[in-house]
Amino acid sequence: MTLAITTETAAFLEDFHETWKFGSTPNKGVDRQAGTKEHGQLRDWFVERAKEEGFEVRVDSIGNIFCLVDFVEGADYVLTGSHLDSQPLGGRFDGCYGVIAAFHAALQIKNQVERGMLKPKYNLAVVDWFNEEGARFAPSIMGSSVMCGFFDLEEMYAVTDSKGITVKESLESIGYLGSDSAPKAAAYAEIHIEQGRLLERHSVAIGAVTQSWYTQKLNVKVLGEQSHTGATIMSDRHDALPAASLLVLKTEEIVSLFNEDDIVTSVGKFDVKPNSPIVVPREVDLVIDLRAHRREDVEKARQILLDYSAEIARERDITIDVQDFDIRDHQIYPEDGVVITEKAAANEGISCMRIETMAGHDSVPLNRVVPTVMTFVPSEGGVSHCEREFTSDIDLEHGLLVHTGIVSQLLNGDLDHLKAE
Amino acid sequence: MTLAITTETAAFLEDFHETWKFGSTPNKGVDRQAGTKEHGQLRDWFVERAKEEGFEVRVDSIGNIFCLVDFVEGADYVLTGSHLDSQPLGGRFDGCYGVIAAFHAALQIKNQVERGMLKPKYNLAVVDWFNEEGARFAPSIMGSSVMCGFFDLEEMYAVTDSKGITVKESLESIGYLGSDSAPKAAAYAEIHIEQGRLLERHSVAIGAVTQSWYTQKLNVKVLGEQSHTGATIMSDRHDALPAASLLVLKTEEIVSLFNEDDIVTSVGKFDVKPNSPIVVPREVDLVIDLRAHRREDVEKARQILLDYSAEIARERDITIDVQDFDIRDHQIYPEDGVVITEKAAANEGISCMRIETMAGHDSVPLNRVVPTVMTFVPSEGGVSHCEREFTSDIDLEHGLLVHTGIVSQLLNGDLDHLKAE
Repeated sequence: MTLAITTETAAFLEDFHETWKFGSTPNKGVDRQAGTKEHGQLRDWFVERAKEEGFEVRVDSIGNIFCLVDFVEGADYVLTGSHLDSQPLGGRFDGCYGVIAAFHAALQIKNQVERGMLKPKYNLAVVDWFNEEGARFAPSIMGSSVMCGFFDLEEMYAVTDSKGITVKESLESIGYLGSDSAPKAAAYAEIHIEQGRLLERHSVAIGAVTQSWYTQKLNVKVLGEQSHTGATIMSDRHDALPAASLLVLKTEEIVSLFNEDDIVTSVGKFDVKPNSPIVVPREVDLVIDLRAHRREDVEKARQILLDYSAEIARERDITIDVQDFDIRDHQIYPEDGVVITEKAAANEGISCMRIETMAGHDSVPLNRVVPTVMTFVPSEGGVSHCEREFTSDIDLEHGLLVHTGIVSQLLNGDLDHLKAE
Repeated sequence: MTLAITTETAAFLEDFHETWKFGSTPNKGVDRQAGTKEHGQLRDWFVERAKEEGFEVRVDSIGNIFCLVDFVEGADYVLTGSHLDSQPLGGRFDGCYGVIAAFHAALQIKNQVERGMLKPKYNLAVVDWFNEEGARFAPSIMGSSVMCGFFDLEEMYAVTDSKGITVKESLESIGYLGSDSAPKAAAYAEIHIEQGRLLERHSVAIGAVTQSWYTQKLNVKVLGEQSHTGATIMSDRHDALPAASLLVLKTEEIVSLFNEDDIVTSVGKFDVKPNSPIVVPREVDLVIDLRAHRREDVEKARQILLDYSAEIARERDITIDVQDFDIRDHQIYPEDGVVITEKAAANEGISCMRIETMAGHDSVPLNRVVPTVMTFVPSEGGVSHCEREFTSDIDLEHGLLVHTGIVSQLLNGDLDHLKAE
């Protein structure tokens, strides 16, 4: 039996631990990439649970799931949720925690409303956004960005995975190509694991997110010439792989030019062609990811990489094409939402600090269209996007308590003064 | 109309140019990886041509095709051929030239025998070996190595491509999973493009191959830790990709420690996991290819790479596992076979020089079991394993004339004194 703070958090832990069974991996992780069978199975379980509790379930055309509970006829909805998809060999907490915490916050609020303890101004919808991770289908944060009008539905339908399967086909295959309209949003709240270690270092239970980092990607195509690894002498080669390797190392190395922890840089995607043991590679396609607190730091790093690419191309007589891609500006989360989080934590006697997010979340597009509150719970060792990702039950419960408080305030219309006309 | 030296070489050019239609690519290359539809279509065409000319066609259990012409009842066979499969986006000459040249050498010899001008001691078989390239299914030189008893048939059947399709399934799909016994070999002759530029530099038409280089591969597994490209600060990462990139660059750099053109080194295969734009890679699997004139040079390069791998692993707190793989010792081609080539060239008034092969060929395993002669024609610019691969018609014709001479001598039993008991 789980030792829990309250009966309500015990019920939450039971449901949350249940989700670990779907797509579970040998080392306590999960693999539930968007539109796969395992992802579909978890969604089926979640929809079933929501229906059991009396929620009305809608699925929109990009496969977002909305579980509605109505308090006020004809009113708009406070949305709250996250995503049930994961990275390949990902962790059990990323996204899934936010959906199940939102669901249990909604259950508690529904109960309080039924008992006359709360009089909401809005209705409530728990959301599972489609394809937040973007591992199988790029770009990430797909479902929420389509709903908010930033990505085109038909363009996203046509996105393919490495085997040529489209987003639309994958949604059909798991039964989540919906046709329902999305509920009209009045506000949005999301809770998520931090995926960094700031909360842990400060021994604080709750992070009130103030802004997202400036981020951009570079799509790089290194074009050399294919030849024979045996028969072609070294001086006759135009090998794309060492050139691409130099770029990977430069990407890592440039962080030393900035203040510590002000920037993160990486190459996560790297495809070699033709990728045969006895063929000198003709092409490498790679994606460089740059993220920083300050926009000027990303731009400085980008320029260094552009100059270096030109230098490598010249020296090695090859072509390197670099394209800007997926630029996401700083998003400031509203100050009044941060204050709501701080108050909700204080009400429960739980420690809270202000924090920025280096990672993208569904709350980023939502924050551009409705008043949005984003909250973090600690990640042990800051580890994420891998099987070792961990957050303790007590931290998960604290998060649920604070999140329930936040959603209650949003249902009360506490951020209505921020709404666009 | 083709300008050809003789009527016979004109017929050869016509057939050879016909093969370019199968799996042709936009930039004058071909893509006919082993067991693909395009590969199967070329094989069907070749089998049809051989039957038209009265050859008996056999297909063995690993999909090697033998086109037999019998001169002496019950006698063994002189085998001659190469391979019809290609690299991905490969050239039109690699392998295919050797098969069609062998076929036309056989046609001329058959004609001479029928006219009483030749009295062979052996029968003749033109061979298309299965999967010489090893791009889709590793290891390379598969069909000939199975026939010679160096690779196990069932193990090779179970080899899969990147989509999980087995060798056996691919052979079935193109209709070349045979059950015929292979003809018993008395000797072997193969002609091939050089894939290097020595002949071109010396303006010589024919290379008489004296030995193959010492080669080996290293299977390297770089194991880091998967994390989030946004949320994980740099000092917390154990990124497998920069570590693997250092190995790629070291592999390229070490050639400077050796005499020029004494060694070639490369990384052709390089797989990043999970290969998602926003995940720090946990693993890179790569194959290093080392080839040198002298065995000690390969061993020295290998040791430097092993030491460097250990150093990177220590510095970056990751694991690098390096396994020796596909070690192929020098093969000395018999001196008397080299002399046969030199005489055949002299008889035709064609220039000839002795040369080593840096690349592997089907003649390498054959040379371990029967007297074998290997011959090269020039490659323009030394370019191979790519669409730009080119050899002029006149060089192809010169090769055919010399190859016909060599096969005639082998049919005459000129290397019988070298046969094992």
